Amino acid sequence: VLRYGNARELCLGLEVVLPTGEIWDGLRGLRKNNTGYSLRDLYVGAEGTLGVITAAVLKLFPLPTTCHTALVALTNLRKSTDLLSRARAASHDNLTSFELMGRTCIGFAVEHIPGCRDPFDFAPEWYVLLVFSSGEGDEPPGQKLQDMLESALQDEVISDAAIASSETQAQAFWRLREGLVEAQKFEGGSIKHDVSVPVSQVPAFIELANDAVTARVAGIRPCVFGHLGDGNIHYNLSQPKSMTINDFKALKSELNHLVYDIVADKGGSFSAEHGVGILKLSDMSRYKPDIELQVMGQIKAALDPRGIMNPGKVLPATAAKTEAGLTS
Amino acid sequence: VLRYGNARELCLGLEVVLPTGEIWDGLRGLRKNNTGYSLRDLYVGAEGTLGVITAAVLKLFPLPTTCHTALVALTNLRKSTDLLSRARAASHDNLTSFELMGRTCIGFAVEHIPGCRDPFDFAPEWYVLLVFSSGEGDEPPGQKLQDMLESALQDEVISDAAIASSETQAQAFWRLREGLVEAQKFEGGSIKHDVSVPVSQVPAFIELANDAVTARVAGIRPCVFGHLGDGNIHYNLSQPKSMTINDFKALKSELNHLVYDIVADKGGSFSAEHGVGILKLSDMSRYKPDIELQVMGQIKAALDPRGIMNPGKVLPATAAKTEAGLTS
Repeated sequence: VLRYGNARELCLGLEVVLPTGEIWDGLRGLRKNNTGYSLRDLYVGAEGTLGVITAAVLKLFPLPTTCHTALVALTNLRKSTDLLSRARAASHDNLTSFELMGRTCIGFAVEHIPGCRDPFDFAPEWYVLLVFSSGEGDEPPGQKLQDMLESALQDEVISDAAIASSETQAQAFWRLREGLVEAQKFEGGSIKHDVSVPVSQVPAFIELANDAVTARVAGIRPCVFGHLGDGNIHYNLSQPKSMTINDFKALKSELNHLVYDIVADKGGSFSAEHGVGILKLSDMSRYKPDIELQVMGQIKAALDPRGIMNPGKVLPATAAKTEAGLTS
Repeated sequence: VLRYGNARELCLGLEVVLPTGEIWDGLRGLRKNNTGYSLRDLYVGAEGTLGVITAAVLKLFPLPTTCHTALVALTNLRKSTDLLSRARAASHDNLTSFELMGRTCIGFAVEHIPGCRDPFDFAPEWYVLLVFSSGEGDEPPGQKLQDMLESALQDEVISDAAIASSETQAQAFWRLREGLVEAQKFEGGSIKHDVSVPVSQVPAFIELANDAVTARVAGIRPCVFGHLGDGNIHYNLSQPKSMTINDFKALKSELNHLVYDIVADKGGSFSAEHGVGILKLSDMSRYKPDIELQVMGQIKAALDPRGIMNPGKVLPATAAKTEAGLTS
């Protein structure tokens, strides 16, 4: 997303089967088209509630020819956005990854996932995994990455950095990142949040959320990681060691609200990439402005009056006043 | 658009006044948000027919610190997409302009617009104005541009190139590009088309369209220029010297159809950036699939049932079956 855009931005055209059974052939490969409402953008992200996407035209990019990967220890969380700016500038926006990872989940990965190793011996609180890429004919960006990190070290943005010297070492860094989710399973119950806030607000959000959940549940263990460049944080909570899973799970709705209220206060989203489905219907009611739900409901009722497309998903019942809904 | 994305892609959030007078506050600065239908993308490009956009949150990028500008003579039109690929790769996607310009309109600009000068003395058929940019801390891309052009010259993609050696010279190249539209006014009546096709199809489209309009109107003068990287061509036609303006203008609808039929055949759009308004309503009926007009009409009727938002625009009357439309 950071380098090439999100799925919506990468999608040029769609084919969609409509509730009537008719097929809309919008399989266009155009970069510019200003002829009426963008139906493509209406169906993208509608989770099948307006029609079923059966084909797509996607933007493609050449694979980077060289990637340079580094694992970095931040001096503190607040410096993460500073490092992001430096990395974007130094790579001239050819930054293909910028993954923020917190102490707790790194610790879980190292403990539970075979092959996960922390290259630092001083247990930093916050890590960033980042990748500079370059294309054919371009000089490899290794020197730029090293210069950027050296300057960040001097300016006390980071306290240490390990640059992968081989593909194997780069993969080892990625194993750490990919082990985070798996590792959390070994630590009992977890309550997860896939949220986004404006990029500049990510550190403040994490601090506020950590304070709030810790004040409510002593010993709770926030496992925080995410795609900082998208403002998208997986704010996951592992249960306190002393609690039963069931007692912890009973707090789910309350902890969700604690976290989402802070997200909302920061102008953020309670579902950055996972969507709504049925699990987050009540959050739609709680956090979306009424007027927005109303407009969505009107669109749903107009395009799927019998309510047959993925019924019960995305829109709370009050918003989805389809024909079927009204007569049942 | 080539480097940073189109207006839709640069728009993160909107505030919209709805037909009811209510205000939808969607002024979010989020890079990722998957919570229901993307109303933002529905209002963008709807030309005010669903609501009035009163504020927006836009993505910003740092200004490039260095720009290197070149004016290039192509060996032939077919090589334009080859040059585009080379320029994208060599600049590592930091290509901020790639403007294709044909002989006829360059000739008009040089003849009619003060300060417009053609740096080549052999009257090439096709020109490209291109700009490589770079950001802070990056080495200036002048060498890359020069290397790319030298290799393109060797491979007979281009027959000559002039790299601007100063800001003044770069501005002189741009004066030529910007003079094209103005210059056409001195050559009598013109019939204009703002079309897009898939980028790879641009040369074939121009050739087919030139053949078709010339077969219909002897002496017609296509003035062709555009943003090749977006597949967006301003396919403008100047009248034959021997014809009266009125006789030429009488051919407008026929010539429109000749051009748009070829565009449609290439999977293109009859309005790449100018929109529909009322001028292109009949083209909506002719070139948009019925099913697409139907869905747009259903959305319009659902969100603006009284048909009070920019009435008569964008949607042909048959599609815009609003409450007002039905009862009038």
